[in-house]
Amino acid sequence: MDAAPQIIKTNVGIVGGGPAGLMLSHLLSRAGIDNIVIEKRDHDTIHNTHRAGILEAGSVKMLTDTGVDGRVLTEGHRHDGIDLRFNGVSHRLDFQELVGESVWLYPQNEVFVDLAAARKRDGGDVRFSVTDSEVLDLETDVPKIRFIDADGQRFEVHADSIAGTDGSQGICKRAIPAEERTDNFIAYPFAWFGILTQAPPSAPELIYANSEHGFALISQRNESVQRMYFQCDPTEDVSDWTEDQIWNELQKRVDGPDGFTLKRGPIFEKMVLPFRSYVCEPMRYGNLFLAGDAGHTVPPTGAKGLNLALADVKVLFDAIEMFYATGSRDLLDGYSDNALERVWKAQNFSYWMTSMLHSRNDHSSFERKRIQGELNSVVTSRYGQQYLAEAYTGWPHG
Amino acid sequence: MDAAPQIIKTNVGIVGGGPAGLMLSHLLSRAGIDNIVIEKRDHDTIHNTHRAGILEAGSVKMLTDTGVDGRVLTEGHRHDGIDLRFNGVSHRLDFQELVGESVWLYPQNEVFVDLAAARKRDGGDVRFSVTDSEVLDLETDVPKIRFIDADGQRFEVHADSIAGTDGSQGICKRAIPAEERTDNFIAYPFAWFGILTQAPPSAPELIYANSEHGFALISQRNESVQRMYFQCDPTEDVSDWTEDQIWNELQKRVDGPDGFTLKRGPIFEKMVLPFRSYVCEPMRYGNLFLAGDAGHTVPPTGAKGLNLALADVKVLFDAIEMFYATGSRDLLDGYSDNALERVWKAQNFSYWMTSMLHSRNDHSSFERKRIQGELNSVVTSRYGQQYLAEAYTGWPHG
Repeated sequence: MDAAPQIIKTNVGIVGGGPAGLMLSHLLSRAGIDNIVIEKRDHDTIHNTHRAGILEAGSVKMLTDTGVDGRVLTEGHRHDGIDLRFNGVSHRLDFQELVGESVWLYPQNEVFVDLAAARKRDGGDVRFSVTDSEVLDLETDVPKIRFIDADGQRFEVHADSIAGTDGSQGICKRAIPAEERTDNFIAYPFAWFGILTQAPPSAPELIYANSEHGFALISQRNESVQRMYFQCDPTEDVSDWTEDQIWNELQKRVDGPDGFTLKRGPIFEKMVLPFRSYVCEPMRYGNLFLAGDAGHTVPPTGAKGLNLALADVKVLFDAIEMFYATGSRDLLDGYSDNALERVWKAQNFSYWMTSMLHSRNDHSSFERKRIQGELNSVVTSRYGQQYLAEAYTGWPHG
Repeated sequence: MDAAPQIIKTNVGIVGGGPAGLMLSHLLSRAGIDNIVIEKRDHDTIHNTHRAGILEAGSVKMLTDTGVDGRVLTEGHRHDGIDLRFNGVSHRLDFQELVGESVWLYPQNEVFVDLAAARKRDGGDVRFSVTDSEVLDLETDVPKIRFIDADGQRFEVHADSIAGTDGSQGICKRAIPAEERTDNFIAYPFAWFGILTQAPPSAPELIYANSEHGFALISQRNESVQRMYFQCDPTEDVSDWTEDQIWNELQKRVDGPDGFTLKRGPIFEKMVLPFRSYVCEPMRYGNLFLAGDAGHTVPPTGAKGLNLALADVKVLFDAIEMFYATGSRDLLDGYSDNALERVWKAQNFSYWMTSMLHSRNDHSSFERKRIQGELNSVVTSRYGQQYLAEAYTGWPHG
């Protein structure tokens, strides 16, 4: 028979040590609110899982203003705009000129590294490589987390509340009884074929390209490594594609009278990113509060995933802080509704960008031409450009 | 054997004497360009076909600046905004404050009356109640129209060009060989149930209401007659509905915590308006040029039908005027592309308004909630409001 688990009493138990969970832990500790983070992966696995990253100004501010690290400012790249490219013609949206904001190109896994280092520096309790984790007694005043740590020791966390920041495949969302939640989702009939290549930048800013051959995104990482994507079938197998085939596919989606030509280099990573939009409603069950991908996933087109997770964390932190400062549960009770307002706006923006930029085999000629009319409407209207730029650079945090 | 038709030589033959055809005739005559208009209906039938009408500022300007009539200004109603209503809450878009423009509520059949009167006053050649009309030799330098006038006399018009302004069911579009045109269209799984009622206005401006029961539009006509619509099944039979049922259906779509209540009165007209989006490409074949509904139809949600027709007429008039002034066919050759740029923007706007405001049985919970997120995105963003207001009040004429 196993030994009884060791009890850990804390204020907030956080399941999931990605950027959302670590940021919440960081904010709580700064406010003197005790917390623990558990994460099933080890640090280096997360660090080495390359993920793109466009950070809204508000997300950057969360990192820099709360003393996480200024590395985003020195190693990230400020982008003051994007190109919308269709019919072979690029239309730059100048975010600074349109809405006075910028975004920052900084990979998500580097955000994780910075947050993990800050937690370590500040003595945060973050347990990586845990196994057998489960959440229980969620509807009681003492919700619990059980897990086995990297050394095989069993623990049971007794908390006032639990934050579920364990991503779309995590245990927290599933712990909400099916009859207590609505799973809102749509599937898309396409995915993204993504590559990392050893090459200089083909462009100084992101290019979102709509073409008759499908969507492509020309992105960057640094001076010598670039990231690019093209719309593909969800069942595509990356091993079926030679480097030449990949480059030709990308190039034909950005071809145009301006002769724009991608700078090629060796491709050292290939992956297929699935596309789905999902929202769990409510984002709360008893004393379990979902944040980030645990509560919702967006397609990558609007670059909203990490930013939305950090926005959730801000709303949740404010609610927890109010509870410990005043005893009022008002903001905790309002958490789901408050977070969901931004979530649905971001879902709509991601859906809009996705619909406007991708091609679909099931589209009639009317739909294809209407979408050209939509792209044309946006780029020929200062208001349209501003509406897009405002959403892309991020609405103010509530 | 029939007598040979009487030949009429003119510059421009215009098929269709609705607002588009009469406006083109009016502009051409003012520029000293000879023309004739034929129309199969009689004047009073068109006059008595009640049609709604929201005129963009540019459309009003065409009527007033070219000396048609100022009645739109004295008998029409200037509207400086609309209400977007969802979740039972109204959000006013103040067009003047947002984009410095207004629209005018003035029925389409009154626009027709004003134009017909102006044509009569100026000695325009407009033949109502013609039969057996056909267009021929379109690809030659002398395209022709044959028709029989109200007195049974046969005529053959020999023109330099023919304008097809005979609506979606007219002969002109059909005269373009199928292999020379693309019919772009989509159907919608709903229609509008429209009424005219003897009642005072329920609101000073139009209310576009999205509700769980479906869309409703609360519109006006004058101090004692109002026009309202609600989304219905395309196969709906108006005779199945009692007045009480209609009022209850309308009321539940605008119900909300503000207690907004429709002012009821006797309903004296009921109709079902079908919904479709259609664009004929190109809008030209040889020396036949389509304008207005003959080239495209939009769903009524964006109030773009008549405005788009008048915008086409402006583009076509400029092209014809240039031809007679300079001999250059450049603008005539560019007519279809130039007109279609606005057409596709207007199609997109109409599609957007339609999609954002109507409910669909085939929508998942995600889609329904995303649309709430979209409505919320628009009303919580000044840029979103401006983008919508700019399109609603009308982009500048080219």
